[in-house]
Amino acid sequence: MKPIVSIIMGSTSDLNVMLEAAKILNEFSIPFEINALSAHRTPEIVMDFAENASKRGIKVIIAGAGGAAHLPGVIAASTILPVIGVPIKSSNSIDGWDSILSILQMPAGIPVATLSLDGAKNAGLLAIQILGTSDEKIQNKMIEYKLELKNKIIKANKELSEIKYEYKTN
Amino acid sequence: MKPIVSIIMGSTSDLNVMLEAAKILNEFSIPFEINALSAHRTPEIVMDFAENASKRGIKVIIAGAGGAAHLPGVIAASTILPVIGVPIKSSNSIDGWDSILSILQMPAGIPVATLSLDGAKNAGLLAIQILGTSDEKIQNKMIEYKLELKNKIIKANKELSEIKYEYKTN
Amino acid sequence: MKPIVSIIMGSTSDLNVMLEAAKILNEFSIPFEINALSAHRTPEIVMDFAENASKRGIKVIIAGAGGAAHLPGVIAASTILPVIGVPIKSSNSIDGWDSILSILQMPAGIPVATLSLDGAKNAGLLAIQILGTSDEKIQNKMIEYKLELKNKIIKANKELSEIKYEYKTN
Amino acid sequence: MKPIVSIIMGSTSDLNVMLEAAKILNEFSIPFEINALSAHRTPEIVMDFAENASKRGIKVIIAGAGGAAHLPGVIAASTILPVIGVPIKSSNSIDGWDSILSILQMPAGIPVATLSLDGAKNAGLLAIQILGTSDEKIQNKMIEYKLELKNKIIKANKELSEIKYEYKTN
Amino acid sequence: MKPIVSIIMGSTSDLNVMLEAAKILNEFSIPFEINALSAHRTPEIVMDFAENASKRGIKVIIAGAGGAAHLPGVIAASTILPVIGVPIKSSNSIDGWDSILSILQMPAGIPVATLSLDGAKNAGLLAIQILGTSDEKIQNKMIEYKLELKNKIIKANKELSEIKYEYKTN
Amino acid sequence: MKPIVSIIMGSTSDLNVMLEAAKILNEFSIPFEINALSAHRTPEIVMDFAENASKRGIKVIIAGAGGAAHLPGVIAASTILPVIGVPIKSSNSIDGWDSILSILQMPAGIPVATLSLDGAKNAGLLAIQILGTSDEKIQNKMIEYKLELKNKIIKANKELSEIKYEYKTN
Amino acid sequence: MKPIVSIIMGSTSDLNVMLEAAKILNEFSIPFEINALSAHRTPEIVMDFAENASKRGIKVIIAGAGGAAHLPGVIAASTILPVIGVPIKSSNSIDGWDSILSILQMPAGIPVATLSLDGAKNAGLLAIQILGTSDEKIQNKMIEYKLELKNKIIKANKELSEIKYEYKTN
Amino acid sequence: MKPIVSIIMGSTSDLNVMLEAAKILNEFSIPFEINALSAHRTPEIVMDFAENASKRGIKVIIAGAGGAAHLPGVIAASTILPVIGVPIKSSNSIDGWDSILSILQMPAGIPVATLSLDGAKNAGLLAIQILGTSDEKIQNKMIEYKLELKNKIIKANKELSEIKYEYKTN
Repeated sequence: MKPIVSIIMGSTSDLNVMLEAAKILNEFSIPFEINALSAHRTPEIVMDFAENASKRGIKVIIAGAGGAAHLPGVIAASTILPVIGVPIKSSNSIDGWDSILSILQMPAGIPVATLSLDGAKNAGLLAIQILGTSDEKIQNKMIEYKLELKNKIIKANKELSEIKYEYKTN
Repeated sequence: MKPIVSIIMGSTSDLNVMLEAAKILNEFSIPFEINALSAHRTPEIVMDFAENASKRGIKVIIAGAGGAAHLPGVIAASTILPVIGVPIKSSNSIDGWDSILSILQMPAGIPVATLSLDGAKNAGLLAIQILGTSDEKIQNKMIEYKLELKNKIIKANKELSEIKYEYKTN
Repeated sequence: MKPIVSIIMGSTSDLNVMLEAAKILNEFSIPFEINALSAHRTPEIVMDFAENASKRGIKVIIAGAGGAAHLPGVIAASTILPVIGVPIKSSNSIDGWDSILSILQMPAGIPVATLSLDGAKNAGLLAIQILGTSDEKIQNKMIEYKLELKNKIIKANKELSEIKYEYKTN
Repeated sequence: MKPIVSIIMGSTSDLNVMLEAAKILNEFSIPFEINALSAHRTPEIVMDFAENASKRGIKVIIAGAGGAAHLPGVIAASTILPVIGVPIKSSNSIDGWDSILSILQMPAGIPVATLSLDGAKNAGLLAIQILGTSDEKIQNKMIEYKLELKNKIIKANKELSEIKYEYKTN
Repeated sequence: MKPIVSIIMGSTSDLNVMLEAAKILNEFSIPFEINALSAHRTPEIVMDFAENASKRGIKVIIAGAGGAAHLPGVIAASTILPVIGVPIKSSNSIDGWDSILSILQMPAGIPVATLSLDGAKNAGLLAIQILGTSDEKIQNKMIEYKLELKNKIIKANKELSEIKYEYKTN
Repeated sequence: MKPIVSIIMGSTSDLNVMLEAAKILNEFSIPFEINALSAHRTPEIVMDFAENASKRGIKVIIAGAGGAAHLPGVIAASTILPVIGVPIKSSNSIDGWDSILSILQMPAGIPVATLSLDGAKNAGLLAIQILGTSDEKIQNKMIEYKLELKNKIIKANKELSEIKYEYKTN
Repeated sequence: MKPIVSIIMGSTSDLNVMLEAAKILNEFSIPFEINALSAHRTPEIVMDFAENASKRGIKVIIAGAGGAAHLPGVIAASTILPVIGVPIKSSNSIDGWDSILSILQMPAGIPVATLSLDGAKNAGLLAIQILGTSDEKIQNKMIEYKLELKNKIIKANKELSEIKYEYKTN
Repeated sequence: MKPIVSIIMGSTSDLNVMLEAAKILNEFSIPFEINALSAHRTPEIVMDFAENASKRGIKVIIAGAGGAAHLPGVIAASTILPVIGVPIKSSNSIDGWDSILSILQMPAGIPVATLSLDGAKNAGLLAIQILGTSDEKIQNKMIEYKLELKNKIIKANKELSEIKYEYKTN
């Protein structure tokens, strides 16, 4: 199957974080591709990638980067696809603030959908929700997924209620 | 025409910022609706809104809020639609940091696509890009839109080149 | 005994922090209950919880959450009881700033009494002080408690005075 | 009527902010007093105030201060009453961060219920909620108050729906 | 004369700030050019610009941008010339922090010489110092320039000494 | 009378802030001098100043600066006198954070006594307290000064008590 | 010998940091005392301490505290002695920002000489410099101390020069 | 060979970070020297160093420091050479913010080319780019260096493409 989501990261050192996006796409049976390409080391490859993604059948791009994280914005500049940005708290990042602000604060005209620090799983889920806007099957899977999340915490809460304290009462 | 994008804000004082989303949707001829509903003052109406948005034909939700900005996250909790969050630097906000972090840092499972502070125009554009993933006409308009952005700055640059300095040379 | 304080947290991973509230309530013989319910995964259960807490005899709610910490505010939206918020420095938090600002910066009309980062013990003590406003017995216990705090540090100070330095003189 | 809530501020320059607490208490017919006393200029008066507040019939203390805002914590040190702290963005404050952190980050044993920057109205409402824990009449007024908040935004939302845009549809 | 310094900014709204670089270059008789080109709106023109700057005789590039300020880094990616970055506190910037971090925190391999917020004058001076490393005439002018700075403050200090206070003594 | 306190600032644009130090020294009849000398524009004059201050009879140095505020630290490096630093929120400062951190975070061995942002009045008072450690007359004046501060707020508080609210009671 | 410097900390958990002040005082043969007293747990003892310090012969007070660090300010309120504040990055502190701002941002009238985070050694040195303003012997020791600091780094620099790199040349 | 780049650091504890600059200079066969001299402990040696660097044949100075990092600015004050500043996250630094702001926010007239936190490698590369402005051989080496960076990530990306996921497709 041809990939419809493209995961891209600025460095292979970001792989551990970005795999969370891959896993959730896998769980939803969404075909995807993974690349590590740097806006600063391979700018023309990144630009080619961005310009051709739509023609290759890609529908959503997930881009993760740390530090002065230009990758998501640089890709958004050269595509009309929705670009999802994942700020990464890499070793060369100042507690993640640089990554967040470099991705979030894009100028008017070139949006990047920014997620939480290291939030690659949510990036995958947002890609799935975007695909779901024109695919009822995906939407139904998402309904199930949210039900599971709910049931998991209800179950955890039940276990919690069995801990005993002298004055605890539920 | 039935709305397919829903713009919602936590307070009518956010209207000036959020109208930028409305304007760009208008420019792309995307039917939309606008509501002001508070996650804290009308929680059950917000929950109803979120639970029923998909059934009413809404495909993307744009939610703006300031301060402890819970509205986008509370809506995302009760819908499977993509939710776009706009942090607003309202009068009760600490330079916008509270709004940004309250929207951005959602837990795994419940993504909110966060845009820049007061970035309602980009929220509208992201909604359009999302709709474009299944609508070629919208994508073509987006290509034109980006071309215009480009031409505008090229023209501005030309005007710049006519300013004269003694040692300025282009 | 029916619980009069309700401790609630956004995830069971917050349990270690929130147990400090339970322990101090136990020490003051205040009956309480503990729940883990998420504003984002189980929104309608949280709303039910908040709407019915007062009718069930609860007098004070202590809510802890990390990251985009909406739980205390979402509960405060649907109850007239005092809600005490505990920002938690969870793994998905940016040094705790997101949790603090998401809880602290509530809009006018819906207060959340916010305590220090991971300050669950103080949340328990504040709940006790609130109950004490209409219960002299609790107030008397609080007087004793503060006396103990005082005596503990006076004793520690005495031990300190026995360390000898050449020019140290007390 | 004897006051049961005491509003105290570090300087009369904080009066404009703190009057919001007075107004909401007035609206709920809660008898209160207002004082301006400084933890740094009149420390022994503040300590006397704190030690005797409970005996004088005060049930809740609301303390506002800016900059290195020690007043709420210093009062909390010498009373067993619940102390509500209002960080104030005064002229000598660094965007309010100093006031917030000086009030919020109290050590274990001495809680201060902290509200949003300049959040004196919410301080008044929290005091009312605390008094409501033992006074059903107050609780009933609070129910009405929240209903009004709700109706106000529902009405504002209705007015919003009458604005016409070409593609706006609700 | 062919330009040897190239000033580039992300938007013509940055012109007022960036003119300070032009003025100081003018003062030192360094031939320069000015362009407004956006890394996000005209990515391929920016890349062309960067790739060809050296061939066109440019020796130093000064790039200013605000918000998610990618321009200096994107240029640095495609040139071997020294790139000087000027973070700009534009209207869409969060007090300048986003601009600073987006420019400063470049990954290893692709340096950007970052100056203070709105520090375009210092950017011009740094460009002059760089040119001075191989041009003694420029270095001599710089020595004079620093002497002037010194004399200006010595003169201001003298004027200060004439203000009289009762107990002031110099 | 020969000056015993030396006020120094990095630029005459800091004069308005630093005059607060001069005024309070005047009020206490402490002879002082004022200079504007820059650590960056007149480094060798600043070093001379610092090395000779003690010999000239100066007992305390008050140094104010904004932005990358090196002046207090550079002076502290070349004197054995106590150096009091005043961070100034000048136009080239990022909300004062740069000034504060540049002065506060001195390495072990070279202390600078840092005061609040724009806190020149307190700098003057600290200088007076330091002189008071060996001069009982100054200490007695300081006792009076603190009494005045106290009486001023007691008087302001009295005026406050005359404002009438329906339910206000003191 | 009677102590002339008093070291005080908010909790014995701050002892490790504050001992650096004790060590340097010892090195300079300055008699001192150490106490652990909390502004929040033993307010009246702290006030007594502050009011009587001068009468007991104390000349300088060094106060260290973490989190909402009120101790230095509360002491400064009740003494006319110079108070040196040491912000401590304790376990309940938000990266030290709370401690720094709670100590630094004192209101006009009540200065606290603030040092760097965990900067107890510099606090001791500042106390020594203050005592030196009226004691030439101490000043002479300080001159020697600074010479040692200088010689230590000159020696370290010499060792550095012996490391060999291919193109390293000194 | 006589050194043309001078690496200087505030303390030998910064050596590990600063060696990255040395290594890259070595790789480009640029002769350099390394010194550890403190702006605060050896101010007059630092000033001598800065004043004479140009005469000794130095063309670029790289200065690294942590905390209140005055070294780069103090050197820039006394030389007309380009000064590159490396903020260091030393043990006495507040997450690096103090080092960054102390170096970055230099006043108009005295630029310091600031690099990322601990970015000594990029400091070396910037020095090389500066030397390259008048040395084609160096520029050619830099072209090769950037090609290597590019090939390294292209190779890493190829390896990435061999990882298999069920729905991964490239």
